[in-house]
Amino acid sequence: MKKLAMGIDIGGTNTAFGLVDEEGTVFCESVISTEKYKKFDDYKAYVKALCEAMHALIGSVSFEFELIGIGIGAPNANYHKGTIETPANLWKFRDDEPNPDESRRMFNFVDDIKASFPNVMVAITNDANAAAIGEGVFGSAKGMKDYAVITLGTGLGSGIVSNGEMIYGHDGFAGEYGHIMVDSRATGRDCGCGRKGCLEAYASATGIKRTAFELMAKMSNDSELREIPYSKFEAVMLSTAADKGDAIAKEAFRFTGEVLGKALADLVATTSPEAIILFGGLAKAGKHIFEPTKWYMEEHMLATFKNKVKLLPSGIQGKNAAILGSSALIWQKVIAK
Amino acid sequence: MKKLAMGIDIGGTNTAFGLVDEEGTVFCESVISTEKYKKFDDYKAYVKALCEAMHALIGSVSFEFELIGIGIGAPNANYHKGTIETPANLWKFRDDEPNPDESRRMFNFVDDIKASFPNVMVAITNDANAAAIGEGVFGSAKGMKDYAVITLGTGLGSGIVSNGEMIYGHDGFAGEYGHIMVDSRATGRDCGCGRKGCLEAYASATGIKRTAFELMAKMSNDSELREIPYSKFEAVMLSTAADKGDAIAKEAFRFTGEVLGKALADLVATTSPEAIILFGGLAKAGKHIFEPTKWYMEEHMLATFKNKVKLLPSGIQGKNAAILGSSALIWQKVIAK
Repeated sequence: MKKLAMGIDIGGTNTAFGLVDEEGTVFCESVISTEKYKKFDDYKAYVKALCEAMHALIGSVSFEFELIGIGIGAPNANYHKGTIETPANLWKFRDDEPNPDESRRMFNFVDDIKASFPNVMVAITNDANAAAIGEGVFGSAKGMKDYAVITLGTGLGSGIVSNGEMIYGHDGFAGEYGHIMVDSRATGRDCGCGRKGCLEAYASATGIKRTAFELMAKMSNDSELREIPYSKFEAVMLSTAADKGDAIAKEAFRFTGEVLGKALADLVATTSPEAIILFGGLAKAGKHIFEPTKWYMEEHMLATFKNKVKLLPSGIQGKNAAILGSSALIWQKVIAK
Repeated sequence: MKKLAMGIDIGGTNTAFGLVDEEGTVFCESVISTEKYKKFDDYKAYVKALCEAMHALIGSVSFEFELIGIGIGAPNANYHKGTIETPANLWKFRDDEPNPDESRRMFNFVDDIKASFPNVMVAITNDANAAAIGEGVFGSAKGMKDYAVITLGTGLGSGIVSNGEMIYGHDGFAGEYGHIMVDSRATGRDCGCGRKGCLEAYASATGIKRTAFELMAKMSNDSELREIPYSKFEAVMLSTAADKGDAIAKEAFRFTGEVLGKALADLVATTSPEAIILFGGLAKAGKHIFEPTKWYMEEHMLATFKNKVKLLPSGIQGKNAAILGSSALIWQKVIAK
């Protein structure tokens, strides 16, 4: 019988899920709103809606198949515990809950899904780790045992694989490479984590936007970017402008590549991967971001590692990458057997 | 029958080796000069002398035992290939060798030892990885699956263990944490690797000595350290001076702890270890180095990891640490079975 794994991607706005086979084909997919369930006490209603929608999706498949597992990618997910902890962008909490410390709240998400799918393997990890496993099972890192995936979206996430295994770390939260400090001075940029100077404040879709605004203040070149207010500015506009030779956009990519390239040279010194894969919105800028990143990475590389490490685009992006990545959490275990 | 593993530690001056049991007891040990064999064409003579000395040591044991393996720790050793590559401080090369590129020269050390010990498991890794495995098998990281060992000697070495396995990386050279860049500006300190601003130029026995000399120039406090020329200065003198309240020595430790603590916070964000173990000469300074390092590590830590990661002294240092560490390379494999 055909085997399929369910992949679920929980985002702040929507939760997407789909059924994926061993080859990485998504047979069907669906979506529910995450945003709708952000009020107090909505978590249970969210889980109920998600499970019902998954059962409906499974019922809609026209052929017989075996559901071999459910893989979930979510912000702040803990692989070891099966929980989602401190989900700032997801569900709020009741005021009368016993533990008033919001910073330590957690949801037993795997258990709550298992309650509705009792005999199915369920596993969860954070979205960047899911992307990394997806690249290993279906994408650019197929067959590699040592590689890293860097997701360049609103923030910078990372999933690092060594000896064929995801580095989850002792507490399940490893791979926060977006929060290495690249500028610990008082002038370092504010980061969403409450500190200053983290890598993701520079090397991410948000980071390059901040750089562009700094450069509009610093440089005197004409630029169509000067017509766009901060609140409407998107990183993709920099690709369009750079394509036309816009000096500010080009400098924004060069600077971002410098910060990211140096940080990747440090990552290579630490874990010596076969390849680093750039994933996510900013990675779609192609050569604009890959060329300076590669150049600065090699420029700062310890001699031992020079010209050894591939810098690759995602092999799953665009193909329901997040659903593929989450389902790969299951396929990885099945294939490993 | 009693089982023993041989541990070999190849240093630039001496090569020490000894027989170690499963509990980490060193039954006997011996040493040959490495330095004596640094002339052209001496490598073969060195291997011959080492193997003879090992056979002699084995012959000297008064009880019957099984030699279960030979573990080797050496600079620039490659676990995957069994080689020692570009050993700047070890053997020189003949002028008439076919490959004139010194930067890529390598010795097939494991094969050369196996030739003299044909039916014995032989494994090699770099000295910092050997220390890390030693801490895992016999020392402060016993029972841990995710930890890092930082060796603070002449340079800074590191061995990172995740999911119970050493991170060797794709090419076998991972764990060069001494060469992450902490100051990539032109003012960054020269590093032995040819670049500027590497962590080990600040956080190592040599690094803190350099800091002390910078501080003697910067600060006007009286200090007995001002009597010692650079060429005679040793890091241990800073411990002695700090014990007496010397302001320059205390500031040197604070600054070193700041640089190292920040770098360890980044390492935690990347690999989330249960503990980080400080090993080597500078770690012997105890509270002088541990206290500022711990403080700055926590100060710069991402909230998720705050107050979770132990900073521990070595559990094998002083007890023939290097021999224990190298032998642990064998015991680790045997115990894992």
